[in-house]
Amino acid sequence: MLSVRLKMTIQQSEPDPQFLLENMFVAVMDNIFLLVLVTLLSVVQNVFFALKVEKECTGQHSKPHSAAFERLSCANRNCMDTYPTFLAVLWCAGICLSQAPAAFAGIIYLVVRQKYFVGYLGQTCQSTPGFLFGKRILFFLSLMCAVGIINHLMLSYGGNDYKEYIQTITKAASALLLLP
Amino acid sequence: MLSVRLKMTIQQSEPDPQFLLENMFVAVMDNIFLLVLVTLLSVVQNVFFALKVEKECTGQHSKPHSAAFERLSCANRNCMDTYPTFLAVLWCAGICLSQAPAAFAGIIYLVVRQKYFVGYLGQTCQSTPGFLFGKRILFFLSLMCAVGIINHLMLSYGGNDYKEYIQTITKAASALLLLP
Amino acid sequence: MLSVRLKMTIQQSEPDPQFLLENMFVAVMDNIFLLVLVTLLSVVQNVFFALKVEKECTGQHSKPHSAAFERLSCANRNCMDTYPTFLAVLWCAGICLSQAPAAFAGIIYLVVRQKYFVGYLGQTCQSTPGFLFGKRILFFLSLMCAVGIINHLMLSYGGNDYKEYIQTITKAASALLLLP
Repeated sequence: MLSVRLKMTIQQSEPDPQFLLENMFVAVMDNIFLLVLVTLLSVVQNVFFALKVEKECTGQHSKPHSAAFERLSCANRNCMDTYPTFLAVLWCAGICLSQAPAAFAGIIYLVVRQKYFVGYLGQTCQSTPGFLFGKRILFFLSLMCAVGIINHLMLSYGGNDYKEYIQTITKAASALLLLP
Repeated sequence: MLSVRLKMTIQQSEPDPQFLLENMFVAVMDNIFLLVLVTLLSVVQNVFFALKVEKECTGQHSKPHSAAFERLSCANRNCMDTYPTFLAVLWCAGICLSQAPAAFAGIIYLVVRQKYFVGYLGQTCQSTPGFLFGKRILFFLSLMCAVGIINHLMLSYGGNDYKEYIQTITKAASALLLLP
Repeated sequence: MLSVRLKMTIQQSEPDPQFLLENMFVAVMDNIFLLVLVTLLSVVQNVFFALKVEKECTGQHSKPHSAAFERLSCANRNCMDTYPTFLAVLWCAGICLSQAPAAFAGIIYLVVRQKYFVGYLGQTCQSTPGFLFGKRILFFLSLMCAVGIINHLMLSYGGNDYKEYIQTITKAASALLLLP
């Protein structure tokens, strides 16, 4: 649809530059709105975690350092420690290569994080002790970044553009993240 | 001014593509420079917090875990924990919808954070115990993100563009953040 | 090369808008791919740090709070605390002014962080006790941001564009970061 509108604009005898600029921003939004959506979901999850910790903290301030609060606070800290890394990789992968597989991997990461946090609350045997969870997803996103950069360099210096093939492969590969 | 320059470029018989590209980057900068400014201010504030903690730490290393240091370190940690969330929401809201209200909300958030940190240093009765401060501002920025995405989807699929009305409403609504 | 391709597109009697859009994205990638590369390296380093902490934690879970684990965990936390600040300043500087000096400063920051982390592991006398390391690099990147914004404002309101001179100066100045 955007192409049609742009074509109309360019074929006019006097194209309106304001319209060209607006279309540029629509095109940018087209390429990031799924990433914004995932970011928004992750922020909602962060607030959910923080409210859990706050509730535990104010609810039991008679005995401030109970075991439950310690575990909750530790789970929250582990989640927050990897959050900037996750955001950086998500956005780089989405911008460099393709937003749909990146956003899909981001959603799966949020589900894994939720399971990790809830598992931490419950019995100790359920909880994962690692500092990094969702390693596979972060690795997948990093790989997407690297492939995107390599493709850009090949396009700049060699003139070959394999972006469409790579995007197809990436979409297929992102389904593999669903494997347990 | 940008539109005028672009118009001149396009109406030439042989538009200079380099000039078109440069104007594109000026247009991008036009839409993010307030966000960059707020980010820069937040970084300066982060460094201020870190220097406060460092000064307290090295000043009293004879008794390493004094109450003042504990409180300072805790305030700093709470601020740092929500910093990535704040940055993500600020930039998403600014890019998706409108940068001026987002930057305004960002400035207010920085003021609230400063008050929180200074309040933590003083008497305990002044300090806010919550893990999240400025919840209202984060909520406002998240709402801006969501509205921006919904507007983009409506523009893509329905053809209606309410962005101008929404931006006017958002600017008016951002003034409400000044209420205590 | 990009200019040549754009020129060809525009000089056609009926320019293909899809092609114009694609070139726009190639131009954007041209201006950020070094930043993406540095971000990717920093993520790899974060994962390396996290794996070090995890290995120490699981390896000695018989005595969970050994001195080595405490020091490792503290070094990791200090690194993670400044990570969002670093990312924000790196990207702002790269987008506002020039990506090559920003990426160069980012690489040096990663080297300094590695030295800080390894120094923390070893003897106490090697380790730097500060909460902020690489202050000079963060200051340089912040300065780049500020100069970029000032230049943009001067371009918008005064019509003067000193960006080329500033970029040359910045590139020369970034070499000064190599001084110990």
